[in-house]
Amino acid sequence: MKKVLFATTALIATASVAAADVRISGYGRFGLDYNDGNSKSMTDANYNGVDKTSITSRLRVQFDMSAETDSGVAFDARLRAQVESRDNVPGTGIFNGARFGVVYEGLRVNVGNIIGAVENTPGVYLETRTAGIGIDGAGFVSHVGNVNDEYFNWDAYSSAGAGSNGVEALYSINGFTGHISYSLDNDILNFNTAGTLTSVTEGEDRFGIMLAYSWEGWTFAVSHQNSGNMWEDKTIVTGSYDAGNWGARIAYADNDGIDKWGIYGNVDIGAASNLVAFYTDEDAVSATDVAAGRSDNTDATGNGGEGSSYGIHYSYDLGGGASFETGYRRASNDNDTFQAGVYFSF
Amino acid sequence: MKKVLFATTALIATASVAAADVRISGYGRFGLDYNDGNSKSMTDANYNGVDKTSITSRLRVQFDMSAETDSGVAFDARLRAQVESRDNVPGTGIFNGARFGVVYEGLRVNVGNIIGAVENTPGVYLETRTAGIGIDGAGFVSHVGNVNDEYFNWDAYSSAGAGSNGVEALYSINGFTGHISYSLDNDILNFNTAGTLTSVTEGEDRFGIMLAYSWEGWTFAVSHQNSGNMWEDKTIVTGSYDAGNWGARIAYADNDGIDKWGIYGNVDIGAASNLVAFYTDEDAVSATDVAAGRSDNTDATGNGGEGSSYGIHYSYDLGGGASFETGYRRASNDNDTFQAGVYFSF
Amino acid sequence: MKKVLFATTALIATASVAAADVRISGYGRFGLDYNDGNSKSMTDANYNGVDKTSITSRLRVQFDMSAETDSGVAFDARLRAQVESRDNVPGTGIFNGARFGVVYEGLRVNVGNIIGAVENTPGVYLETRTAGIGIDGAGFVSHVGNVNDEYFNWDAYSSAGAGSNGVEALYSINGFTGHISYSLDNDILNFNTAGTLTSVTEGEDRFGIMLAYSWEGWTFAVSHQNSGNMWEDKTIVTGSYDAGNWGARIAYADNDGIDKWGIYGNVDIGAASNLVAFYTDEDAVSATDVAAGRSDNTDATGNGGEGSSYGIHYSYDLGGGASFETGYRRASNDNDTFQAGVYFSF
Repeated sequence: MKKVLFATTALIATASVAAADVRISGYGRFGLDYNDGNSKSMTDANYNGVDKTSITSRLRVQFDMSAETDSGVAFDARLRAQVESRDNVPGTGIFNGARFGVVYEGLRVNVGNIIGAVENTPGVYLETRTAGIGIDGAGFVSHVGNVNDEYFNWDAYSSAGAGSNGVEALYSINGFTGHISYSLDNDILNFNTAGTLTSVTEGEDRFGIMLAYSWEGWTFAVSHQNSGNMWEDKTIVTGSYDAGNWGARIAYADNDGIDKWGIYGNVDIGAASNLVAFYTDEDAVSATDVAAGRSDNTDATGNGGEGSSYGIHYSYDLGGGASFETGYRRASNDNDTFQAGVYFSF
Repeated sequence: MKKVLFATTALIATASVAAADVRISGYGRFGLDYNDGNSKSMTDANYNGVDKTSITSRLRVQFDMSAETDSGVAFDARLRAQVESRDNVPGTGIFNGARFGVVYEGLRVNVGNIIGAVENTPGVYLETRTAGIGIDGAGFVSHVGNVNDEYFNWDAYSSAGAGSNGVEALYSINGFTGHISYSLDNDILNFNTAGTLTSVTEGEDRFGIMLAYSWEGWTFAVSHQNSGNMWEDKTIVTGSYDAGNWGARIAYADNDGIDKWGIYGNVDIGAASNLVAFYTDEDAVSATDVAAGRSDNTDATGNGGEGSSYGIHYSYDLGGGASFETGYRRASNDNDTFQAGVYFSF
Repeated sequence: MKKVLFATTALIATASVAAADVRISGYGRFGLDYNDGNSKSMTDANYNGVDKTSITSRLRVQFDMSAETDSGVAFDARLRAQVESRDNVPGTGIFNGARFGVVYEGLRVNVGNIIGAVENTPGVYLETRTAGIGIDGAGFVSHVGNVNDEYFNWDAYSSAGAGSNGVEALYSINGFTGHISYSLDNDILNFNTAGTLTSVTEGEDRFGIMLAYSWEGWTFAVSHQNSGNMWEDKTIVTGSYDAGNWGARIAYADNDGIDKWGIYGNVDIGAASNLVAFYTDEDAVSATDVAAGRSDNTDATGNGGEGSSYGIHYSYDLGGGASFETGYRRASNDNDTFQAGVYFSF
């Protein structure tokens, strides 16, 4: 005996019983990932026991819970269960941390696994289903906030972890969006085997702010993170134009002294195809920063590093929420990946 | 494409297809927790790296499965997925252990993550949404079974763990409820590095019984746990009166020699507000018990200890299953907490 | 406020909204397991701290996601959440790895936590709800592929782990089914404390093929696994006849040199009862293999070993998807188990 969850885009239940509900949605994606950073040949310098071509896959099941008070204030919560396979290491499903929200008209306040103001900046992710290149995003090297082994060092919603445990407020009106976010870490206390406190790693805070404005296809956004942690202060500026069947975008970030800028374009081809391409350039770490202990990622084993990244992505819409996705990108550390596979929503 | 789970209080499906079903329900709660046991100031004696005021939150998603045989005997199972943040330590979602049940008329037999007879005693938890004070219950110091670092040392349903793996029977008829429960732990075998069995921690059993009777607003209950583990034998007696818009309650427990009693009251204020208050008093550990190795919790770092606890809780119903909840309590170890936040069901 | 998932065996939603959906189904089973391999008496030779009679239970909740493209190609994904208690060790719920599929007419291609060609051979599992004896399958000693401490050493769908992360294709037409599967493990790199690579455990591949044909109650099947790992090459041949209210079956496997064969029978008794019985015989490990390092399981502490296994299982249908199940079996290592309990689907 099977259960059927009704598939619909509208809330069918009438108002009197719709005060509270649970919705399940998500997507599956799977395909092949060619990554020249992997090698199963022991004679290769980058031998790591993983075949250059492996399965990449993700299943995401999202639970959205909500309730609405008599005064029209809505409460909601989001939880994700996710299963991933990368580099031929299959995982089992895990839940992430929960995000709770209070919504009233254009205002939303979130608590817990927050989105983060910098993460929410329009114009930083690619116009693809993965928000990056290929099937799994291929490391999101196109993001101007990702530099020099300091990838994703801002408060951002985590789909597979607990997230930032912060607080944030978002307000939208007439094309304008404002977003502030805040999180504070606990100190980490280190004890020796005798139980004496030997040192403390102070838990720092992160404050983020984002402002965006959209008007007749144009969108401009600026965001900033002020962090007590080293090398995490950053400012991002983006501008984009969406003509409907094509779009263009520029983005720039000052990542605590490391500049990175990018240009991006996307175009529909016929009824079902879409092409996205990008080029970014990232500055070297300054000698002053290196002297102060900042990594300069000279051995190219890390995520990023000085120089340019570029990539191209092709998508074909199969209908019914499914599509074929493929893409190639070269990262600034000369890592090449090429991926192809399918993506379907439910 | 989103899924809609129909929100309703009635089983819509007709009898012919309702033989088996799955229901999803739960709640979200989040707010701020002031706890004077925490400190992020290294000069404080109780420095632990956690800010005195932090986010407390929980998302609970409950799956209830059921099937009914031709003879009217019903089988069911309950599973919970839960995400918690306490003291600014955000967690990811985890499942608990499953409870299986067989139900026929007034009789229910459960297997697995059982409720437990003592846990199920009416009149031991507060008349609040958390069953304690504030947003997360604040340690449930009002429970007369919780004394002297021996909190929750009885078989009880676990929402975030595997539970007791026991068996229990509940029978209800005409206001009377009887409940017996039993669990048995495996021995823990300790081996040295050479693989030789060096010692055994014997796995003990717990037997619980509870009897309750309700009549015209009055409820009386008595429960007892007999445990093979030290300091776990306990007897609880409660009496309460519910007048509809106010209620009063008394409770007493003998916790293997440590007496604890409490008085409790609750009252509706206007259409949406409710106030709950309690006072409890707990005896010291006897000199005989201390000599026999029982903790007397003199340094007040534990959960309870000799003396009085008291607290007050205020709730405001926002409609649609949501409410504002706030409460203050002082524990017998002089720990103060004050919490405020919201709670919504789905 | 509760959610109701409609219970039905048909997809109610109309075609226009049925492009994508989520279905939740599963089962609960619980009962008592008598296992003479356990002992809570320290004077017993096989003392392990576990009572001979303990609770065995499982709750399985299965999520099936699907979407269909405009061309009629369907994509799907399967995820399971499972909670188990065996030998009185209660577990909490865990997700398994995901399996993704592409389906078009008789062809299915799966990626991830694949079924596996050998696992999918008709005529290898018992005709019971557990596919083995009793409530939890009792080790599946009746399977001809399970010999000599080498149980389940083929690619198979895992309900509680990540599975094989492979690729497979299944094709069915007019009673014929063909199935090929492939998986490749990563190498395991071992480093010393100084970070130098000291040794490598090479990750091997497994290739499986299965062919089956069904015709007027008769089913014949043959399958083979070719593995880079030691002692994993195997060939299975089965033949069965299903007369409706009774059936008979034979199975044989060459498990890399260890022959095992089995005979099986099942018969309905009246309207609700069913009886299943089996007998298997397994060869000893050859002296050549033992000399080459293969375990010969002479101390009978492992799963299998030379000799015969047999068992009998009785089932009574309670209606509504529920049944009473009980069974006894003796394994070739002389281990006896007897289990009884209930099983219900949702």
